[in-house]
Amino acid sequence: MRYTIFGESHGPAIGVVLEGVPSGVILDMDFIRAELKRRAPGQNALSTARKEADEPEILSGVFEGRTTGTPLCAVIRNTDTRSKDYAQLQNLPRPSHADYAGSVRYKGYNDYRGGGHFSGRLTAPLVFAGALAKLILKEKGIEIAAHISILGGVEDPAPEQMEELIMAAKNDCDSVGGAIACTVSGIAPGFGAPDFGCNAEGIFSQYLFAVPAVKGVAFGAGFGFSCMRGSEANDPFYMDDKTVKTRSNCAGGINGGITNGMPITFEVAIRPTPSIGQEQDTVDLSSGKDAKLSIKGRHDPCIVQRALPVIEAAAALASCELIGI
Amino acid sequence: MRYTIFGESHGPAIGVVLEGVPSGVILDMDFIRAELKRRAPGQNALSTARKEADEPEILSGVFEGRTTGTPLCAVIRNTDTRSKDYAQLQNLPRPSHADYAGSVRYKGYNDYRGGGHFSGRLTAPLVFAGALAKLILKEKGIEIAAHISILGGVEDPAPEQMEELIMAAKNDCDSVGGAIACTVSGIAPGFGAPDFGCNAEGIFSQYLFAVPAVKGVAFGAGFGFSCMRGSEANDPFYMDDKTVKTRSNCAGGINGGITNGMPITFEVAIRPTPSIGQEQDTVDLSSGKDAKLSIKGRHDPCIVQRALPVIEAAAALASCELIGI
Amino acid sequence: MRYTIFGESHGPAIGVVLEGVPSGVILDMDFIRAELKRRAPGQNALSTARKEADEPEILSGVFEGRTTGTPLCAVIRNTDTRSKDYAQLQNLPRPSHADYAGSVRYKGYNDYRGGGHFSGRLTAPLVFAGALAKLILKEKGIEIAAHISILGGVEDPAPEQMEELIMAAKNDCDSVGGAIACTVSGIAPGFGAPDFGCNAEGIFSQYLFAVPAVKGVAFGAGFGFSCMRGSEANDPFYMDDKTVKTRSNCAGGINGGITNGMPITFEVAIRPTPSIGQEQDTVDLSSGKDAKLSIKGRHDPCIVQRALPVIEAAAALASCELIGI
Amino acid sequence: MRYTIFGESHGPAIGVVLEGVPSGVILDMDFIRAELKRRAPGQNALSTARKEADEPEILSGVFEGRTTGTPLCAVIRNTDTRSKDYAQLQNLPRPSHADYAGSVRYKGYNDYRGGGHFSGRLTAPLVFAGALAKLILKEKGIEIAAHISILGGVEDPAPEQMEELIMAAKNDCDSVGGAIACTVSGIAPGFGAPDFGCNAEGIFSQYLFAVPAVKGVAFGAGFGFSCMRGSEANDPFYMDDKTVKTRSNCAGGINGGITNGMPITFEVAIRPTPSIGQEQDTVDLSSGKDAKLSIKGRHDPCIVQRALPVIEAAAALASCELIGI
Repeated sequence: MRYTIFGESHGPAIGVVLEGVPSGVILDMDFIRAELKRRAPGQNALSTARKEADEPEILSGVFEGRTTGTPLCAVIRNTDTRSKDYAQLQNLPRPSHADYAGSVRYKGYNDYRGGGHFSGRLTAPLVFAGALAKLILKEKGIEIAAHISILGGVEDPAPEQMEELIMAAKNDCDSVGGAIACTVSGIAPGFGAPDFGCNAEGIFSQYLFAVPAVKGVAFGAGFGFSCMRGSEANDPFYMDDKTVKTRSNCAGGINGGITNGMPITFEVAIRPTPSIGQEQDTVDLSSGKDAKLSIKGRHDPCIVQRALPVIEAAAALASCELIGI
Repeated sequence: MRYTIFGESHGPAIGVVLEGVPSGVILDMDFIRAELKRRAPGQNALSTARKEADEPEILSGVFEGRTTGTPLCAVIRNTDTRSKDYAQLQNLPRPSHADYAGSVRYKGYNDYRGGGHFSGRLTAPLVFAGALAKLILKEKGIEIAAHISILGGVEDPAPEQMEELIMAAKNDCDSVGGAIACTVSGIAPGFGAPDFGCNAEGIFSQYLFAVPAVKGVAFGAGFGFSCMRGSEANDPFYMDDKTVKTRSNCAGGINGGITNGMPITFEVAIRPTPSIGQEQDTVDLSSGKDAKLSIKGRHDPCIVQRALPVIEAAAALASCELIGI
Repeated sequence: MRYTIFGESHGPAIGVVLEGVPSGVILDMDFIRAELKRRAPGQNALSTARKEADEPEILSGVFEGRTTGTPLCAVIRNTDTRSKDYAQLQNLPRPSHADYAGSVRYKGYNDYRGGGHFSGRLTAPLVFAGALAKLILKEKGIEIAAHISILGGVEDPAPEQMEELIMAAKNDCDSVGGAIACTVSGIAPGFGAPDFGCNAEGIFSQYLFAVPAVKGVAFGAGFGFSCMRGSEANDPFYMDDKTVKTRSNCAGGINGGITNGMPITFEVAIRPTPSIGQEQDTVDLSSGKDAKLSIKGRHDPCIVQRALPVIEAAAALASCELIGI
Repeated sequence: MRYTIFGESHGPAIGVVLEGVPSGVILDMDFIRAELKRRAPGQNALSTARKEADEPEILSGVFEGRTTGTPLCAVIRNTDTRSKDYAQLQNLPRPSHADYAGSVRYKGYNDYRGGGHFSGRLTAPLVFAGALAKLILKEKGIEIAAHISILGGVEDPAPEQMEELIMAAKNDCDSVGGAIACTVSGIAPGFGAPDFGCNAEGIFSQYLFAVPAVKGVAFGAGFGFSCMRGSEANDPFYMDDKTVKTRSNCAGGINGGITNGMPITFEVAIRPTPSIGQEQDTVDLSSGKDAKLSIKGRHDPCIVQRALPVIEAAAALASCELIGI
């Protein structure tokens, strides 16, 4: 299964094409809509005011409610676009956004409105793809669950703490970063390989780094390994009835690039959204001079909570690749 | 350029095939040997006693001292093998090694001696490939430098501190983990893309996670982003003569999956080597019962210092892919 | 540049996603529509009566009339569908159609109406993709032209001969096959490689065999080589001003999998469309017994002439891959 | 399973690396040597006088006589090299050889001796890889058999006719071309897909065109389709006990890019070897002037018979990809 996401934030539509989908999967649209809603903006004061129905239209690959096995294209129309908010940005790249790098990459021809193809909005079709992947995995007993492990420096924050942190940042015209921990349970031992392009960590990381704002990926004890000794880091084996298990899971379910039957656990670092209301230093690409920028428009003071279903989606697609779907 | 590493720790040879090498590159064997020596074992009390000349034989792809552009195969013969050290391991998987996962993956047919294809010894051909990549990149003004950022929990340790930490672990029949920071400088802005399979972070991470013992990869501020606000995390642009630069480099030189012209910076977490002399719990795969294991043989109390040229090699190969070589 | 075609003949829409499109290409819609029209059905008595506007809607990847460089999705809605014509086919596979093989492959879940994803209608988005590729190639001086080399056994037939052959077949409730010769001119020497996955013939053939009804691909003298001696088959070199050329072009512009600067020439065999009105033997998949089938519905007695822009499209996409676009 | 061939005709060695080999396959070296012998030169007056033992050394991926599942590298040393025969060729490209195209491609750095990486000698490691693929396929009931269908224009020639044709060409300092027909039997229905990169014809053609001298590939009736009507070309279905079969097999076992359970049949066109003793026109690349060339050295007047195991090897590797090995 291979996905390709297309679309621009302020273009006619965004969407995804999935190739290699197994045939016969019941397309549970209630589940898919629920997943999309977890990501959708405009749900409360903590996220952007942009409202989008995010109702996917299936153009192909589904017949009588089931996947056909041929390429599946789903499209989500853009409706609530306010392109003029972004007109000023064409020559004033927003710090830590892709505006400048993208304009070099695409020689100035990319659609700059609302971040264009770089917009977080493009994660909607990713969540669609991930929801389909979850439906496939569920039949095989594989489940995926993510939670916020850090928000604004606070580990395992309670909901009210998160709300406070986000509202405080919003009031300061600022944003906050965090980290998301995710567990994939139910994958049998023996998937992956040590080799380039085949190892389990590499496969997961490629899907996870394709999510905007992800800047770090670590498995099991992750960067905690740098403070550990082997005697703490090693996961002793034991027999649980007839199954080989490990007492700890510092390795995050992966040894030598291959699953060992324990849950795959990983954490991703989510950078604070770079769209902040404070005045920032930038450059004017038309004049080649330093400039000041105050970003208008609608944005999230924190995307970590909205990123949860996106990280799960990426993990679901990675799991499919890992187990050969 | 694409690399494939082959070989087993106690088989006849290990090696690498490189496809898509640019033609005409002078194969500076002095440089390549120096790189291999940085990784080689048996150089002091801090690493394994196994001694290997690690002299590569070039079988193809080089003519009159330059690369031909056709596939280049380099082979390193194994010489100092003591296979009987490992005979006991066939049924007693070493905790946190790939013994168990690998035996499931390969249905018990993999070469278990000395870790077989999972051995750290397989990083020698990777260093060979990386050395060639460095020669190619150097002509384009791209340089790569890694250093130990954490060892056994100590940040930016001095050499004598490292030696103490490692010897202490060795005396305890234990091992220590760490982290390596790496900088790739000289890559122009505009390489990469936001899309799956094309983004700069994803490309680097796939090469880095193919290095044994790497369990985390983070770019720029990495997991530090989880404690930051956007106003700290954003890298303000400014004009340096006629070049767009950023005052800070929290993004590690990558915005939206695309290089922005600043140095690419990343850190990798290196787990403590799982081969330790202490008795450990494991299972006996032949009887299906719990068992005890004391690993004999020769191993490193710390592989972080030997991993430096390996991480640089992976970064060099990733850089080649990123810039289209 | 990589293309993915999606859609079913009687589903909501068909379309294509193109990744890796160069940015800044002017999307000449007049040219694209003209190419689509060359392929469109319902234009005269020689082709199927199905009428489709085949007007593509661009959902992404184009901004202010130029390609952005991000994935481009174009969609063509299906309008003139008569699904009930095909209801009988679910259990009676049409000889030499993909009905049976497809139903095994997709476990019976594929959309069988009008051939579903196997329909020749899916070549419309391929022609769209090829038209874009032609626009890119034209800027580099590369041109592609195909013509009918054989129709119903007649070599290089004149238009009136073709019309007679096709009408005769139509009157017999039959169909006719043919062959198409194609030339790609303007590709410089030095593209391709002898290796698997890189050689020029292999690249072209993969695109050409992805066109329904293509059953053979041959370069230069092709199967004529089997009757030749080396002295006839060899193309002698000569200097044309400062350019190396060959006096003949039996090799079809490719030596050792690499372009030699001469036009790339190839021929493809097009099987007669398997949809014929005559009663045919088949099996009833529901009862497992032999059965008879008379295909109703609308179909072409000959698709060779409509395949011309499709073969050119495949050649254009192959040329892009070959020269590294 | 993926193969990479490396080596040059007059370098130290040629060889192949195979990734993704199933583990546990018994490496039947007698069979492998017999396959290599079918291809080996120097066996009689009809082929080149160069003698090579072609004894493969297995460097990796095999343990206790079985494949391990990790990359398998096999190397064949070059022994009987007479490089000085080729010294003159550096500036005088041989007509219809890859000398000129290759020198442009590799900027003059490729090893020109004996054709270098373009040499037919590189088919020895391909036969090794194919022999391993045959061993894997045999366990699944899949068999591959090729025969000469045309030689020097004579269809289905008897051995003595072939010998006459070849000796006649040899006496004329010339060479002859031909065609090879091949059948793959035992592949179940349902493998492949209509889509680019997945269709059965495209998969086979990519492996076949990677064989030097192959200039055409056609399935089933192939170019014969261009003279047929649908009523002749269609393969009627019938029930053979409980199996769906077709009475004819014009489609060569493939409908819509998917196997239908009938034998896969195809034919390849083999060009006459371009190395002929007659004086030929060429150019002098050093002076940029027209020149004459008489090729010395040892070469085959006909490679069609030696190509049989090579075509079978390519078909075996393609079959593995098709059925997901």
